Amino acid sequence: MNDDTQTNAPGQAYPILSRIQGAADLRKLSQEELATLAQEIRDRLIKVTSINGGHLGPNLGVVELCIALHLVFDTPQDQFVFDTSHQGYVHKLLTGRNGPEFEGIRSSAGLSGFLSRDESEHDAFGAGHAGTALSAAVGMAAARDALESDDHVVAVCGDAAFTCGITMEALNNVAESTKRLIIVLNDNEWSIAKNVGAISKYLNELITNPIYNRLHHDVGSLLKTVPGGDQLVKLGKTAERGWKSMMVPSSLFEKFGVRYLGPIDGHDLPQVTRYLEFARESDEPVIVHVVTKKGKGYKPALDFPERFHGTSPFAISSGKTNGSSKPTPPNYQDVFGKAMVRFAQADPKVVGITGAMPSGTGLIHLSNEVPDQFYDVGIAEEHAVLFAAGMATRGMRPVCGIYSTFLQRAFDQVIHDVCLQKLPVVFCMDRAGLSPNDGATHHGLFDIAYLRMVPNLICMQPKDEDELVDMMHTALNQDLPATIRYPRGAGEGVEMKTEPQTLPIGKAEVISEGSDVVIWALGPMLKDAQILKEKIEAEDGLSVGIVNARFIKPFDNELFLSQAKSAKLVVSMEDGVRSGGFGSLLSETLIDESVTTPMVRIGWPDQFVGHGDGVADLRAQNGLAPEQILADVRAKLPKA
Amino acid sequence: MNDDTQTNAPGQAYPILSRIQGAADLRKLSQEELATLAQEIRDRLIKVTSINGGHLGPNLGVVELCIALHLVFDTPQDQFVFDTSHQGYVHKLLTGRNGPEFEGIRSSAGLSGFLSRDESEHDAFGAGHAGTALSAAVGMAAARDALESDDHVVAVCGDAAFTCGITMEALNNVAESTKRLIIVLNDNEWSIAKNVGAISKYLNELITNPIYNRLHHDVGSLLKTVPGGDQLVKLGKTAERGWKSMMVPSSLFEKFGVRYLGPIDGHDLPQVTRYLEFARESDEPVIVHVVTKKGKGYKPALDFPERFHGTSPFAISSGKTNGSSKPTPPNYQDVFGKAMVRFAQADPKVVGITGAMPSGTGLIHLSNEVPDQFYDVGIAEEHAVLFAAGMATRGMRPVCGIYSTFLQRAFDQVIHDVCLQKLPVVFCMDRAGLSPNDGATHHGLFDIAYLRMVPNLICMQPKDEDELVDMMHTALNQDLPATIRYPRGAGEGVEMKTEPQTLPIGKAEVISEGSDVVIWALGPMLKDAQILKEKIEAEDGLSVGIVNARFIKPFDNELFLSQAKSAKLVVSMEDGVRSGGFGSLLSETLIDESVTTPMVRIGWPDQFVGHGDGVADLRAQNGLAPEQILADVRAKLPKA
Repeated sequence: MNDDTQTNAPGQAYPILSRIQGAADLRKLSQEELATLAQEIRDRLIKVTSINGGHLGPNLGVVELCIALHLVFDTPQDQFVFDTSHQGYVHKLLTGRNGPEFEGIRSSAGLSGFLSRDESEHDAFGAGHAGTALSAAVGMAAARDALESDDHVVAVCGDAAFTCGITMEALNNVAESTKRLIIVLNDNEWSIAKNVGAISKYLNELITNPIYNRLHHDVGSLLKTVPGGDQLVKLGKTAERGWKSMMVPSSLFEKFGVRYLGPIDGHDLPQVTRYLEFARESDEPVIVHVVTKKGKGYKPALDFPERFHGTSPFAISSGKTNGSSKPTPPNYQDVFGKAMVRFAQADPKVVGITGAMPSGTGLIHLSNEVPDQFYDVGIAEEHAVLFAAGMATRGMRPVCGIYSTFLQRAFDQVIHDVCLQKLPVVFCMDRAGLSPNDGATHHGLFDIAYLRMVPNLICMQPKDEDELVDMMHTALNQDLPATIRYPRGAGEGVEMKTEPQTLPIGKAEVISEGSDVVIWALGPMLKDAQILKEKIEAEDGLSVGIVNARFIKPFDNELFLSQAKSAKLVVSMEDGVRSGGFGSLLSETLIDESVTTPMVRIGWPDQFVGHGDGVADLRAQNGLAPEQILADVRAKLPKA
Repeated sequence: MNDDTQTNAPGQAYPILSRIQGAADLRKLSQEELATLAQEIRDRLIKVTSINGGHLGPNLGVVELCIALHLVFDTPQDQFVFDTSHQGYVHKLLTGRNGPEFEGIRSSAGLSGFLSRDESEHDAFGAGHAGTALSAAVGMAAARDALESDDHVVAVCGDAAFTCGITMEALNNVAESTKRLIIVLNDNEWSIAKNVGAISKYLNELITNPIYNRLHHDVGSLLKTVPGGDQLVKLGKTAERGWKSMMVPSSLFEKFGVRYLGPIDGHDLPQVTRYLEFARESDEPVIVHVVTKKGKGYKPALDFPERFHGTSPFAISSGKTNGSSKPTPPNYQDVFGKAMVRFAQADPKVVGITGAMPSGTGLIHLSNEVPDQFYDVGIAEEHAVLFAAGMATRGMRPVCGIYSTFLQRAFDQVIHDVCLQKLPVVFCMDRAGLSPNDGATHHGLFDIAYLRMVPNLICMQPKDEDELVDMMHTALNQDLPATIRYPRGAGEGVEMKTEPQTLPIGKAEVISEGSDVVIWALGPMLKDAQILKEKIEAEDGLSVGIVNARFIKPFDNELFLSQAKSAKLVVSMEDGVRSGGFGSLLSETLIDESVTTPMVRIGWPDQFVGHGDGVADLRAQNGLAPEQILADVRAKLPKA
């Protein structure tokens, strides 16, 4: 490991990697050089993520797999679809993105942390949400067939993708939609150890069952040692008998008309290469089951796979996260998780449900403390919500901990199953607002707009972590479905009450009085409201009131209208899209009641927001820096 | 069949059925009386749907299954979750809903065409969209376990439910979430003949494979003839050996930790009853594979299964739909389907994709005429959209034909996969607006609100069927994703141009000039706008202009603002929800530009809309009758 590399010149630190501009360069290397390349890639991954943060574990696990893919296939003619694509760093390094732009990954100056069609022609399909790769790949393969092209489509899916309904919908369609498709099942043992769901269990059996292992070794040794082994690959159809005998009979995938091949050691580069060559020549859909280790080559990542799945910056020598001992305010997710423990201990009917995100949502606390009231259903947001709805019919009080962006997956279930039936499911949405380094696929900017249209739903956003607990308490003590949105990361550092308080539903909270300008804000935007108030009061000589809206739905029409009618300007502030969002709601309210007070709507513009160096950076890029907000508001201020 | 029954007194026509108020009454009947009951139920189903329309075929197929379910289980303690629940009529008849309310099914005076928790305590879970039953049932079973209750949860799923990702997500979780769950796989042969996807094919093999059939007969005869057969059922755990031997080894379901039992003849009431008794005593999750015939007992429904899946009123003697020879304007779906044929014939890159709705969407025309450019992916909306996205990356021009309400299922794919990547997928949404007799789960009222927030998306609604073709042509000849929404049923009867026209993107069409009041309307609301204009001009002496907005996004801000600034009143009219919809967009526009002209937003209120006797009936119930619209507008009219 190049722990001491201080230089920014990749050529010195990574002599082989720096020469790789594409597959042709790769193919010139000897096996020994390829092994060195793998080590250089690992060093660079560790180095860069130690500074920028990122998905280190998954990328360390696919180093050999990605080298093998590029040895065997030719992008961009051939197309790789990486599921979720957080494991795409190695692919980036091998496709001409190994210069300084890689050092800037996940920052505004650098590469995206996911694949992106805008970033490279080698990125055939972007992602960020899980479970989409196989489905998109089936479409690409069907198009390839329709266009009578002879290129190859390779879907690279983690085992967890198979807990996701879309992958299964796609798997059901593979055989009818295309004659040729290569699926690489990148099965990392850590995830399997978690064993969420029947398919994970099944895959684990494939790996641990001695019959499979024996068969696998047979195939392996056949390919390695028989003189005609390499030749076999070339034989295509005529090798039908050899082909068949190499296949482990695996009824699950073969029930779906997909030939199963494996399991193989994903860190044995020659073996992976050989199997992929074999798959390339297949004239039927094939799945290659590759077993990899998340975090391979870096002990802290092997020891703490969940923390290094997506890590913040860390010290390479210790693996410790920078500043992890700093006494910052608790994260919203931990406040949520600990409150869940408390509510669950007080009432056995309170349960927490996550779609494979116990750490990210904070439900890990519930899982540790009250495991019987915790459910992890895998990457299966639709099922998570329906499962909650089913439980609610029996008088349980389910709480779904789910990121704002992932709740988009269960939009229909929220409408059709939960709200239409008025089932009291509570949705606690972390990452509502920006998730700066992850970019467009991970921001939670749409939820206010897509949820406020749903009848029977209560929608809330707390001003701080203490109010989050009040809102959870409030939601659990009434009979309608409810959502609570809150931002990623640290809370406000406020004192937590010992007992949560029931909030009056549909009532806003006046933070400060002021009659010329009234600002209605949600969550973290209340801090911006305060800045705005101070500026305007000091410089424009107007009195500014601030209201913590608390409830997007039902909205406090009464207070809002009484203020708006007498004010000179209304300002709405939200960490969400302007189209259809909170400010849109306030606009509707003014229009419906024929109130002609001018209004400014502060929120995110109608465009996808990328990744950047933090909230402030992305806000500035999108017209939401404090001085821009001030200018927008001032433009509509009444002349004194 | 009681084709001649003219009376409204069910007691005379259906002597046994009219006595059934619950399971206790059912259990008093002899096998012969049960057979007569089945016949009475079929007669009544045919009679009622011949008048009201409805899901006749699916209900005729489950008569014996539903009788058996109620013979074996006790609702509401035990809970049935019917997938989609369009096959719930028999269950309704057997749970106290066999009076005159059944004659009014799907009308405002009568029962819902689906199950509903509001309608009966015997309806444990409502539905309307497919694929939700197993997922909800897993939640109910987990809650049952947590509450230490000993009741039974039975999910009744069609084979098509297994093409749907949610069902597979749930299947993956069954074994970990609960110890006991009964899944009835109601496998109707017609659907299987369609063979969409690998699972359908697999189920078909189970039925037709002689090994399975032999095993099945062994089980059947064992249960029927062995003196201890009935006793076996009671033995529970101790019968482990017998149990095991009765199981057909079925690797697909057993890979998911669910014991498979079947296939059995779903019209053999004693057999179905016996298997369900057996399943009831099981201490592990079990799937009972029941083979039924859609339309069983009514020849026209057997002969034309797709038409009788959900039928409009028909003549019992012939099976012909009433007034099917009347020369009405063509349905939007047929205009869409025929235009797809034309576009596909002209360009091999144009393909049509449906999620199991070839007839409903009109893509059946494409399937018949240009089958190589038609894809039916099963009830798998998420995959349908991702499959389209994948195809679009290769330069294909995919068109997803999908109902507005079902596109909710693919909301995340529209955002994350299509629009973020600017892939030119076209979404043609039938049933946008009301779908009167089907009710809350089938109206398409949310799409304007949930789509207009998505960046990069073009959103359109045509004023008539000719403009629909123009919009398809326009969408296919530009490079952004686009949606086109249009209502259920007949078009306007306008003349169709021979060549479609490219519409300028983002430009509205002035229908009639008028400066005091300007009405901006979408689609069928233009007719309401015309009525409004005539009234106001005649009675209020004001000039009224009408604009066909055409584009919800990008919206014609320029024309709108120029009109709004000089008008005395702006009116928006949409067949969609007011919260966040088209009128909301216009409100935002006025507010942002500080235009203080009063505005009225006509659209659906913030509540779920039920089923009723047609569009006019439901509009009147929700404040949208012409005279109510006039009153709302008049309340804001400037005094002359």
